[in-house]
Amino acid sequence: MSEPTIAGFDPARVLADLYALRKIGAYKTGVHRPSLSPEHIRSLDWLAAALPAAGLQPTIDGIGNVFGTSAKPGRKLLAGSHLESQNQAGWLDGPLGVVYALEAARVLNPVADFDGAVEVAAWCDEEGHFGNLLGSSSYVGDVKESEIDQAIDRTDNRRMRDALAAAGYADRPRIAVERGRHIGYFEAHIEQGDWLESHHLKIGVVTSIVGIWQFKLIITGTQNHAGTTRMAIRRDAGLAAVRLLTALDEAFRKAAGPRTVWTTGRIALDPGAPSIIPGRAEILFQFRDDDPALLARLETLLRDTAAAHTERGPCPIEVIKLRGTTPALMQPRFQDAIEAAAATYAGGKSDRIPSGAGHDAQILAKVMPAAMLFVPSIGGISHHWTENTSDADIATGAHVFVAACAKMLAI
Amino acid sequence: MSEPTIAGFDPARVLADLYALRKIGAYKTGVHRPSLSPEHIRSLDWLAAALPAAGLQPTIDGIGNVFGTSAKPGRKLLAGSHLESQNQAGWLDGPLGVVYALEAARVLNPVADFDGAVEVAAWCDEEGHFGNLLGSSSYVGDVKESEIDQAIDRTDNRRMRDALAAAGYADRPRIAVERGRHIGYFEAHIEQGDWLESHHLKIGVVTSIVGIWQFKLIITGTQNHAGTTRMAIRRDAGLAAVRLLTALDEAFRKAAGPRTVWTTGRIALDPGAPSIIPGRAEILFQFRDDDPALLARLETLLRDTAAAHTERGPCPIEVIKLRGTTPALMQPRFQDAIEAAAATYAGGKSDRIPSGAGHDAQILAKVMPAAMLFVPSIGGISHHWTENTSDADIATGAHVFVAACAKMLAI
Repeated sequence: MSEPTIAGFDPARVLADLYALRKIGAYKTGVHRPSLSPEHIRSLDWLAAALPAAGLQPTIDGIGNVFGTSAKPGRKLLAGSHLESQNQAGWLDGPLGVVYALEAARVLNPVADFDGAVEVAAWCDEEGHFGNLLGSSSYVGDVKESEIDQAIDRTDNRRMRDALAAAGYADRPRIAVERGRHIGYFEAHIEQGDWLESHHLKIGVVTSIVGIWQFKLIITGTQNHAGTTRMAIRRDAGLAAVRLLTALDEAFRKAAGPRTVWTTGRIALDPGAPSIIPGRAEILFQFRDDDPALLARLETLLRDTAAAHTERGPCPIEVIKLRGTTPALMQPRFQDAIEAAAATYAGGKSDRIPSGAGHDAQILAKVMPAAMLFVPSIGGISHHWTENTSDADIATGAHVFVAACAKMLAI
Repeated sequence: MSEPTIAGFDPARVLADLYALRKIGAYKTGVHRPSLSPEHIRSLDWLAAALPAAGLQPTIDGIGNVFGTSAKPGRKLLAGSHLESQNQAGWLDGPLGVVYALEAARVLNPVADFDGAVEVAAWCDEEGHFGNLLGSSSYVGDVKESEIDQAIDRTDNRRMRDALAAAGYADRPRIAVERGRHIGYFEAHIEQGDWLESHHLKIGVVTSIVGIWQFKLIITGTQNHAGTTRMAIRRDAGLAAVRLLTALDEAFRKAAGPRTVWTTGRIALDPGAPSIIPGRAEILFQFRDDDPALLARLETLLRDTAAAHTERGPCPIEVIKLRGTTPALMQPRFQDAIEAAAATYAGGKSDRIPSGAGHDAQILAKVMPAAMLFVPSIGGISHHWTENTSDADIATGAHVFVAACAKMLAI
């Protein structure tokens, strides 16, 4: 039994668009397209050139956001994602949601008797080369000019102002949300995890986007000679770090919820030489969950564990909170719309799941109802050039996305 | 009750020399005098200029070793240490032994009816900016020209060949040991630990120099997204590193000897980003002891622990041995000579202890009997600009050193 097809929906066109974007900044089977790099700008130009075919007027604004605006009267849904990539990373992380939005606009906007239009957005720097979800944050009014002045690419130290000037965007205004214009925001994305694949599902209906709580842990010891300093008198910041992280992992395993994740991304020992006892250790530690109360309990657990280790000695531990985003809830009626579309166009192979990654949708959720749809990631791989999704799953996801757009506009 | 004084010994002259060297490349209360830096070369020139007053003919050879050679007939003792420092490090680590040797030569060489002379050496690059005890290794015949061709400063990547050329040493021959010329080698050094200070002792009679066994541990995981990858399916190389190092520390505490030390100097997680599960961890791990059998047992323990963690999963661990020096035993009769000198000139406040650090004496021990004398380090601090020894302890050490030289030459 095959599913019905939406009139005008063209999965081959979706795949052709994604393959075209894959060639811009190709890296092995993925792409290398950092924010405001020449390759990223070429991808923005590609999108601007594609928008008129969907009845949309293209604009690239002063922070590198691309908008496709409809002159059609009536209800409007904003849809999109991002076109830059992590360094040497996957081809679908971002472009999938942009091309789905473009396809939905191409299918739905020309239908004269359909009351509604899909408008398209590609947000600049979702991947955080210069900041933290800067493009979408600019759109909702959360970015000051001084932040852009200070923004520097974390890989090559390029100033964002210089990058915007090189792209020709420096003198353009930044486009801000027009309150009341959209019924909501809808974003498709690869899952970046293995939940869908391992449960033989095709569509993830996102219930919430997790809060990400990021900490720097600084451990102070005494730098000394690794040959002549007896074990009994050492204050080894590296060993204290290792013990703390082992204890934290054990404590978090007991306190975590079923989908909580925690990660030590970096351990830097100073001076980091083979024959010197480290005098200082710096750790980046983060955890994520969609329950604000659990996040708060885990922060307490982190601080209590660090305090207990400080108390026991010999190295004091300082806990500095770098970031603590609030989990964003996705609009329930939009979730119903996606689920209903998946019932028709994906054989009902959907599940409601939270997003463990941050997305522009969490920013847009501050100013309008928001929704997200996930497609399966092969092997759950993400932020790596081997990231992939099968052509069949890409096509199924696009089909459900277009249908869900129509349903949301009809609510 | 005051101790007797050796005729001609001048503790003020010893301190004046050390303070003069402290001014060459001064950094806070220490010095920054990397091997073959302009400051290091000035210190070599300072020594060459000081040697004639001790009846010694100065030569700086093709690898930056300084020699003071005596024309006096009879028994000769070679004494010295090094003049370069670790980066931004202490003022006595090296210069103390060179100035003690100079003082011994100044006191003993002019004594016409004393059968013997002290010859002085300052070995280049004991601190390993370009290699591993390169100067003394060159002297004993262990350094090939190709090794010097490839030697690069580990801080600024300067080629050793370029540094030697800039110093004007490039066309000079390297001086090699003349078998039978010396009855032995004698080196004074700061302890770099706190054994002497914490036991209210003034002189360490070194029994052996530890073997240093250095390993690189490589842990292979799977790089993935820190938000979307469930804890259950992660292969986190960083977490595997933390668990391994905690287990290794516990195992080593049980298996170690009373003076064994072990150190993790560096932990590098790749890619080292806050939101990426590390796909690879690289660890520098070393241990030291003066018992070859214990060193071998600890290597087995390291390999067995790594294998057990590999077996348990999920991340395989590779153990690569980078370095495994053989412990060097100091000459027993020379130890007796130092102890006897300390009985007379340091109120007997001496102890026989192993050296936890590597020294040029371990290289010289390959070709002649060798001995070392330690003076106390305040707070045990070393390889840091705050390293220090009191003027009184420096003077006592010099006194014992000169007396021990006389005793060794009289054996």
